Amino acid sequence: MALIVQKYGGTSVGTTERIRNCARRILETQRAGNQVVAVVSAMSGVTDNLIRLASEVSPEQDPSEREMDVLLATGEQTTIALTAMAINALGGKAVSLTGAQAGISTDGVHTRARIVNITPDAVRKMLDEGNIVMLAGFQGETASGEITTLGRGGSDLTAIAMAAAIKADLCQIFTDVDGVYTCDPRVVKTAKKIPEICYEEMLEMASSGSKVMQNRSVEFANKFGVRFEVRNSMNHNPGTLVKEETPGMESVVVRGVSLERNQAKVTIDDVADRPGISAAIFDAIAHANVMIDMIVQNVSFDGITDISFTLSAADLPKAETALKKILPELGEKAQLRTTSGIAKVSVVGIGMRSHSGVAATMFRALADAKINIQMISTSEIKTAVIVQESEIENAARVVHTAFGLDA
Amino acid sequence: MALIVQKYGGTSVGTTERIRNCARRILETQRAGNQVVAVVSAMSGVTDNLIRLASEVSPEQDPSEREMDVLLATGEQTTIALTAMAINALGGKAVSLTGAQAGISTDGVHTRARIVNITPDAVRKMLDEGNIVMLAGFQGETASGEITTLGRGGSDLTAIAMAAAIKADLCQIFTDVDGVYTCDPRVVKTAKKIPEICYEEMLEMASSGSKVMQNRSVEFANKFGVRFEVRNSMNHNPGTLVKEETPGMESVVVRGVSLERNQAKVTIDDVADRPGISAAIFDAIAHANVMIDMIVQNVSFDGITDISFTLSAADLPKAETALKKILPELGEKAQLRTTSGIAKVSVVGIGMRSHSGVAATMFRALADAKINIQMISTSEIKTAVIVQESEIENAARVVHTAFGLDA
Repeated sequence: MALIVQKYGGTSVGTTERIRNCARRILETQRAGNQVVAVVSAMSGVTDNLIRLASEVSPEQDPSEREMDVLLATGEQTTIALTAMAINALGGKAVSLTGAQAGISTDGVHTRARIVNITPDAVRKMLDEGNIVMLAGFQGETASGEITTLGRGGSDLTAIAMAAAIKADLCQIFTDVDGVYTCDPRVVKTAKKIPEICYEEMLEMASSGSKVMQNRSVEFANKFGVRFEVRNSMNHNPGTLVKEETPGMESVVVRGVSLERNQAKVTIDDVADRPGISAAIFDAIAHANVMIDMIVQNVSFDGITDISFTLSAADLPKAETALKKILPELGEKAQLRTTSGIAKVSVVGIGMRSHSGVAATMFRALADAKINIQMISTSEIKTAVIVQESEIENAARVVHTAFGLDA
Repeated sequence: MALIVQKYGGTSVGTTERIRNCARRILETQRAGNQVVAVVSAMSGVTDNLIRLASEVSPEQDPSEREMDVLLATGEQTTIALTAMAINALGGKAVSLTGAQAGISTDGVHTRARIVNITPDAVRKMLDEGNIVMLAGFQGETASGEITTLGRGGSDLTAIAMAAAIKADLCQIFTDVDGVYTCDPRVVKTAKKIPEICYEEMLEMASSGSKVMQNRSVEFANKFGVRFEVRNSMNHNPGTLVKEETPGMESVVVRGVSLERNQAKVTIDDVADRPGISAAIFDAIAHANVMIDMIVQNVSFDGITDISFTLSAADLPKAETALKKILPELGEKAQLRTTSGIAKVSVVGIGMRSHSGVAATMFRALADAKINIQMISTSEIKTAVIVQESEIENAARVVHTAFGLDA
């Protein structure tokens, strides 16, 4: 008998019919001889509706974050009750638990709380009594009994953290795709599902735009060694198993190609090359709450250099405003240039750590397709380039082919 | 500085605009120099929608009552968060508490739990910190941490029970009517709002069809001596104060006239007049979950009698089915007759305890209007008659006039 944690996202429980489908699936898993804890999100649309109500009652200012958590936590509470009812109606035995009831303790940072500790006694007791446990994702409780929510990707995190706490044999993340692909199948028709991927690759794929899951949950799984499988709730196809790196994995040089659209580039030309200049720039950006991606600084010439970085195009106005204020501090001739309409293509694979030539293969493929590279950034297991947005799909296809991923 | 508990029903918080109106009113009450705990129901329509979802996921059987409570409790949780946000947006300081967080302990009878105890420490602490406390009505928690709901009228009960627990100076029940009237103003145009009424009269008015509140909450208020005021949330008119009987109250003989439509009558003729016959009849009715109202048994003649009782017309088929099964046990010639299309008019007032002639005045008024009385029932503070449904409005008007209530 295995102990399995499953997680069903908002689309998978988006209607009462879909809730019944999930209930059937959860019950099948138990009847195959397993103990099951199933984490569910709010039904799709419910959270957005609650946020709309909040903005209607508080149009003058952002609603209090404490109250936002009380409000949003109702979404998952609704789904656990409905799914438990559906399982019971199918002849199973299920009980629901809110985050607080399941012993999920968090810090007090409302709307983006961090899990501090899990006391899974109630979960264990209910499992031992033969129940399927329906657990509300995305939520917890502070030591003083306040309701908190975990922020984006919170339900995945609930599943993975509970799997760690109860030492589950397997954690299954059900979503609306079959798993992690070598590239977005809508762009590259020959993209294949990846049967196994290690945490680091999953992190690089995610941060490069293949948003099956938030990095936060993958990092947590990596830290606590929780193996998990990404699967489709609408079919029974095998998914992608995400796990620690194993020796066999290294024979694959490149695991996948990832795309990120709607990027922008900021270049500050003729910056004085002296200590503290980069700090001044990126302090200003950080204070504007802008997340940046690649950073490139050229070699200095005559005490003058230039710095470029990329960011989401949506954040470009905020970044420009912040930088214009400090431009005079950066050097007499310092100038600001911005470019939007660009995108990022990355190749990811832990195998490239011990293989030279990955960058060369990628650049050659792009050159043969007459695609100009505007910026390059590399990490141990990723090589990323910036190209024109209009060329992104062609770039993905030629790189996918160049690394033999079509086969 | 007074400590006030207010309660706003589902219609009063039915839209985000109405929630803002309630928030304004709550804030005004605090700014007038009071401490305020405000109990809210689910927004109107929300509970019905949740019940519909439950029946969709569990079409084969009634949903588990434990899960029904987890589901329904989200309705009030949503309203407390939204109302607290609305108060904060208006410059006030509010925090929300679920029933569990507010220390409302109940027994474990899901969907109709009884309050066992209230530990109002969290409520007191938040009040002392200058907060308005937004309290979820209708819900509590068992000693083992399960979510429960209190059943019909549960939010009124929450308000009155919390008022008792924190020794509030006043409890205000806001609803969509101005208070308790001498009769339904849609029927009797001259009906007046009653400024003060005692618990017993309120109970008789409620059980005779003037359903401003459920009897359960009035009984609780009576037991713990909680004075409460029924007011309209949409205006600032004074309401009706419900309190213990005071000497001055007795000078009014009849406080009001109450109507109950859609009644039916069951008569069992030629029943053997021997011990156990009534028990057999009303056992059968109770097992069919039918609530009965008046019971009349005529004087026996030749060892044969007849028994009549009234009930809601909606329950008539259930009652007939139950009685047909036991008819042979009731006597050789026992026969079942049923009548629908009847209604009840009651006059209520504690003054009638010490005044003779109330029944005579009522019957004379009805006779003068040529309205036939089909059944009569009396209690210490109520006299009720059954008439044809088609005559109910006229009956109410002539009785209202006869007792000087038009003045």
